[in-house]
Order: sequence, then structure tokens, then C-alpha cells
Amino acid sequence: VTPRVEHVAAPGSPGAAATPAPPLRVALLGFGTVGRSVARILSERTDIASRLRLTHVFNRDVARKRASWAADSIVWTERIEEVFASRPDVVVEAIGGLEPAEDWVRRALQQGLSVVTANKQLIAAAGPRLLRLAADEGCELRFEAAVAGGVPVIQAIQQGLAGDVIARVAGILNGTCNYVLSRMGSGSVSMEDAVTDAIRLGYAEADPTSDVDGVDAAAKLAVLAGVAFHRELRTADVATASIRPVDAVDFRYARRLGRTIRQIAAVEALDAATLHARVGPALVPEASRFGRNEGANNIVAITGRYGGTTAYSGAGAGGDATAVAIVSDLLALSASRGPCGPAEWPAAAMDDAHEGRFYIRFVVRDRPGILANITAALARWRINVDAVLQEPGFPKDRLPFVVTVEPCRELDLRNALNEVDSTDFRIEPLVLPILFE
Amino acid sequence: VTPRVEHVAAPGSPGAAATPAPPLRVALLGFGTVGRSVARILSERTDIASRLRLTHVFNRDVARKRASWAADSIVWTERIEEVFASRPDVVVEAIGGLEPAEDWVRRALQQGLSVVTANKQLIAAAGPRLLRLAADEGCELRFEAAVAGGVPVIQAIQQGLAGDVIARVAGILNGTCNYVLSRMGSGSVSMEDAVTDAIRLGYAEADPTSDVDGVDAAAKLAVLAGVAFHRELRTADVATASIRPVDAVDFRYARRLGRTIRQIAAVEALDAATLHARVGPALVPEASRFGRNEGANNIVAITGRYGGTTAYSGAGAGGDATAVAIVSDLLALSASRGPCGPAEWPAAAMDDAHEGRFYIRFVVRDRPGILANITAALARWRINVDAVLQEPGFPKDRLPFVVTVEPCRELDLRNALNEVDSTDFRIEPLVLPILFE
Repeated sequence: VTPRVEHVAAPGSPGAAATPAPPLRVALLGFGTVGRSVARILSERTDIASRLRLTHVFNRDVARKRASWAADSIVWTERIEEVFASRPDVVVEAIGGLEPAEDWVRRALQQGLSVVTANKQLIAAAGPRLLRLAADEGCELRFEAAVAGGVPVIQAIQQGLAGDVIARVAGILNGTCNYVLSRMGSGSVSMEDAVTDAIRLGYAEADPTSDVDGVDAAAKLAVLAGVAFHRELRTADVATASIRPVDAVDFRYARRLGRTIRQIAAVEALDAATLHARVGPALVPEASRFGRNEGANNIVAITGRYGGTTAYSGAGAGGDATAVAIVSDLLALSASRGPCGPAEWPAAAMDDAHEGRFYIRFVVRDRPGILANITAALARWRINVDAVLQEPGFPKDRLPFVVTVEPCRELDLRNALNEVDSTDFRIEPLVLPILFE
Repeated sequence: VTPRVEHVAAPGSPGAAATPAPPLRVALLGFGTVGRSVARILSERTDIASRLRLTHVFNRDVARKRASWAADSIVWTERIEEVFASRPDVVVEAIGGLEPAEDWVRRALQQGLSVVTANKQLIAAAGPRLLRLAADEGCELRFEAAVAGGVPVIQAIQQGLAGDVIARVAGILNGTCNYVLSRMGSGSVSMEDAVTDAIRLGYAEADPTSDVDGVDAAAKLAVLAGVAFHRELRTADVATASIRPVDAVDFRYARRLGRTIRQIAAVEALDAATLHARVGPALVPEASRFGRNEGANNIVAITGRYGGTTAYSGAGAGGDATAVAIVSDLLALSASRGPCGPAEWPAAAMDDAHEGRFYIRFVVRDRPGILANITAALARWRINVDAVLQEPGFPKDRLPFVVTVEPCRELDLRNALNEVDSTDFRIEPLVLPILFE
């Protein structure tokens, strides 16, 4: 066993400046949606070129795949032997499935090469063995992209929550099921139609079995359970129920109970060695984080003994989001420790020209002409009124009403308000930005 | 400058087993709510005792503070010189405020000691200088606890999203303001009453000025901006508006617009050097992640060029949640790199005795006695019915209705259902767990 040499000194450590380490040489296996996004990020992000260099892209029929924007220096190959012979520093496995992915990951680790993978199926099936192998060979196996796409939930458990003792992990880990169930919940769409839409929109495979029957979520849950509890959860041990029997009528009854239906994957530790794990449709409060999770979004809630529940949400799939997770794993490998990025934070330049929609609430002694006065001032600054709201039931001598305006510069708005005759203003108008998130 | 020696080899690296490194010696400055929780977690978590050892606790009037559950080996002192003379490996600064915290942090870093702090004010005011100092001395300054308490959002930006280019960070960073505004939004509570309640419940200081006027959130935003954009954002440059002028009437008008009001802190990069930053009350959609954020919870949404928006939420304050962030930072310092925890994942034992509330939907050919039949079977298994729901408008020969039951074992429920005469069942009953989150 030959220990791998550290490529980069701790950022800012005395040695770092003296001997800038060469970039990690990255070989990419698979140039589908995710692999392509990884290559594009590595190509576009010149700020990390000194840390990561893509040297090889492996794919079947690679000539057809070759991207015009990729660096000339990249070797495109359909021979896996050529990749291994080049002795890269890291192998990114973006092929998916168990074979040949597992063979190649194992072979890379046996050569002491670190591996970054997005392959939930592989980690669920063979994670414990592969991690042991990586440890024995002094290299690393990272798989942030295997669960919840671009949501860094594995890192959250392993590092951000390392100080806590995890008791439970529950989440919506399958975007297809969430799309289908949230469609059914918001309209009177049948399961069949919602699944057809999901396939048409690319959220689901042509055969959505592994999504709707919970196999996909069970694999992701097994990965999370391993990270959270350091225990191997076999997917066969996860009590898994399909969403197929859920009918539109169930949403009607669920609503009567203040609830809706989502596919929930949950695992909890009953003691250090014993887990309870299940995947399947469940009734959740409409107003809860799970009930409000719409479309193909993923969300994971982690409950710790000390810190309570923290939740993490975002795009659970998609080439770019998944590729962010892979590149983040690569950057973690490229630094021996410590945060990425410069130690220096130069002063920011500031831009105050905030533009947006605004809500302006006036409180006035009511008399004819006040609104005309306000709208005229706004018009002089070319600010369009969007709505005027005046609720009933307030005293005339202290009347609150609201004007909302279309996008404008805040400075222009302040100037316009300064031009309004304020004789009848009981208090200064309150200006609030209107946000869309 | 003497480079610090790495204390622990990469987990699983060939050297690791041969020479187990001694635990990091931790000196804790400050034994208030947060410091006390840090000490308690370090005392209770025997699984990390080989990595972290609390050696000193510094506090004024320390005799009064001394905790009976703490290890006898801890030195309790009110003399800061004694702490520095002991040459700890890491100093945890849990004092707060600028003085003397800044002096002591600076002094620790100058001695090459890494520092973990929860002090947003310190990082906002002096972060860039202290980070530079740490880099020069070959040690680290970590401050996960300075923003959003137990939500590991700094780690998410620095590591989990390192593969992305951050464009915008927006969030609810002040639990007091969120408590006050969500109280005002859900009832007809005045600002004054809501603030009084927040103080009574311990969410706000006796003088809530720095919360309601946005000073606290601006400091946290400056910390996030530094981490996300590697730029120093001076809190004085943040356009800050108080929530004080927000009135109950504004919630009424906001609701007319489908919105509610929250204190939002947001910073975006207009280019690599130019930021736009603001803190203050804003109208947000009622159904959005910010609009739905209730009570003292914090939430941060991070938008990247590639991965879109990911969101992170949880307890923004509280001793235990903040202490989790500090202990996580300590664990990160204790490993040269790689995830915490064992490389081995032994097989989990499984527990299938799931207990909970359930929703059971039947579809039957209606006739008298069906419900009696079902409830009798449930009663035989000592399962209490919670509700029976039957919506109108369905055909009698294919009638869906629902029974919900009080907490029971799923196995008992399945057994009971097997005992029901299924002659009139059109399809098998659908059993769904009812979750409360």
C-alpha cells in the first residue's frame, strides 16, 4: 500500500505559498447529462483551474459526445484501460448502475485513486465495502451527489452536524413521486395522468417503476442512514410501499384532515445498532415542510439530540445541480483541509441602486386630492402604479391606504415621495420592497 | 512562524492506525448559555473523547459557574493568562461582544492556536484581518455558530456548494424579528405586545434594539457575504431598515396581496467586486419559504449559478443548537480532512414494530354492517378509532370512506384488517401512516 501524497498544503499554511501544488488530474467516466455538466463547470470556472484539471473523458461512442467547448488538452476515449493507464488523481464515476460502475470504482480505489460518484445504487449496495477499501488504500470515496442532487445534505450530516448525535433523518428524496403527488394534490389529476406528465417533462424515466414503487428513495435512504448512523441499511430491509394505490379521493379525505400526501423516506435510530426505516406515501400536514414541498424539489429534515431539526431543500436532480455536488467533492479532495477560497476578503464595492417593486403605506387625514397628489408625483418620476388598496373600517382622520408600484429605482421612489405635499400625512409613508420568493 | 503539527492523520490513512493522535486540547472562554452547552456536549459525547478534550474553562466569577457534571480534570479559572499559559490546541470564544473577545482571539491566533467562535459581531467587524492572521500563522479561525445557530450554512457555502458560483444569499437571520412579525401576522397583535412577548420568552434581549433595527441581521449578513463572495461587507454599508414602523394594518394589506411581512437580509453580487446588501422588513409571498417561516426559526436561501436555490433552516439560536455548530467546528479541526466517523458501517439491526397513527381508506359495495364489521375487528386488536370520514357524491356500489385510528402497532392494524370480512371490499384497503411533521 502506497499512501497518496497530499496535493495541496492547508490553505494559508506556511508551505502553501512556497510550493503551489499542481491541480488534481480528474478523469471523468460517463458523459451523459451529469458528466457533461461536470465538464462544463470545470471548463467555465477558471477560478478553480489551479486546483482541478479534467484530463480524460470516457464514454461509449465518445466521438459523438465530444463537446466543442471543452479544452483541447482533454483526452476523449472509449477505452477504460487508457483512463487507468493515465494514472489520474481522481476518478469521477458518472455512469450509474451497478455494472460496470462498481468494477471500475473498485479498481480505481485499489490503485489508490480517490473516487467521486453520483451513484446512489452503488453506494446503497456496496458503500461499506468500498469505503473500507478506500480507507485501506489511503484514498477517499465521496458521494454527495448520490442523494438530493445539489443539496449538500451528506456534508451537512458528516461535518456541519458532526457535533450532534443524529436521531432521525426524514425527507422527500424522489422528485418524480413528489411531482406526481403534488400535482394530484393541487388539481384533480389522476395518478396515471400525473405520471405521464412527469415522463413527458423528463422528471421520470420511461419506466417509472423504481421511482413510484420507492426503490430509488430506499437506496438514497440507505446512503443517508450509513452517513448518519454509520450502519449499513440494506435496501431490502426498508419497509417500502408504492405510491400507485394512492387515488385522487385520498387527497380529498386528507384535506379534510388538514393533510396532504407525500412519499416520505424516513430512518430513525432506536439505539446505536437498531434502525427503523420506511419509504412510502404518508399523510403529512398541509402546512408542514413536507406538505408544502412542491414539484420535483427534494427536502431532508435531520433531527439531532442537541440541535433539534434542521432542514435542507433544493433541486434533487438535474445535470447542473448534481454536477455542483460532484465538483464540490472534487474541491474537497483538492485541499488537505480548511475552507476553499482565498483567506483574503478585500473590501466590497457597494451598489445602492436597488430596483424592484414596492409597497407604500400612507396614513393620512383624508380629503379629496391626496391620491391625485401622490400619483402625480410618481408619474413625474415615471413610476407606474400597480394597485391602490383601501380597506374599510378605518377612521377618516387617520386613514391607512396602500399604493403598490411596478419595478422602479428605490431612489426615484424616495424622490417622488419627497415631492408629495405631506401636510395631511399623519406619519411618514412606510416603503417596503415586495419580494417574489 | 512555527507551523502547527497536524494532530490527526486522515481517517483510515495508513498512518492513522499506527499512531493514534492525542485529542485536541480545548480551552473554553465563556461559560454562559452557549459555553455551558459546549462543555455539556463534550462531556456527554464519549464517542468523540478521543478527538476533543476540554482542559480549561475561563469565566469571570468562575466558582459560581462550575458545573457538577464536568470532568474533574477541567481547570476552572478566571485568569486568562492561565489559559494561554496552558498552550491549548484550540480556543473556543463564547464570550461575545468586541472587547475583550477580539484581543483574546487575536492573541490565540498569534500563538498559532486555532479559534472557534460564535461571535458574529467580531467576524463582521474584524473577520478579514483575523482570517489573514490565522492563515499567516498556519492555524484556523472557524465561525459556523456565528450565523443561524445550529444550521450549518457556512459549511454549506464553503464546502457543499464550493462547486457552484454563488450569486445571492437571502434569509431570515434574526429569530426575534421573525417571532415578532409572524406573531403580528397570525393574530391581531401589536408590534409592542409581540416584542414584549419575545422578551418574556427569552427570544429577545431586554433591549431589543439591535434585533428590531436590523443591526444583528446586518452583522450576520456581513459574515455570509464574506464566506460567499470573499469580500468584506461592512455592516455600515448594508441598507438597514427597522421593523418598528410595521403596523398590524400592514399585515392586513399584505394579505390582500397574497403576502406577509418578514425581516429579510439579502446580499447579491452584481459582479465579482460589487455587492448589493439590505436588511429590513419586506413583503414576501405567504406561501414562500420566507413567508411560511414561523417563530424564531432561521432560514437561508442560497442561489448559485449552476445549482439554483438551496435552502437551509432550523433553530437560529439557543445554547444547544449553537453549541452543535461549535463542536462541529472543533471536530473539523481535529481531522486533517475527510469525513468524521468510522470508515466501517456494520450491518444495522432492524426494528419493524412501527407504531403510529394510521389512515385507512376502504372502497366498498355499500350495505349495512360494513362499518360495524371493521370497528369490531379493530376493537378486538384494541385499536381505537379516531375518526370516520365519508364524503358525499360517490356511487354506492363503489364507495370510498376513511377510518383513522389512534396510535397503534402497524402489525396489529394489518391483523385486524385481515379479520374483516372482505366480501364487499372492491379493492384492498389503503393504509397510510399519519405524520405530524
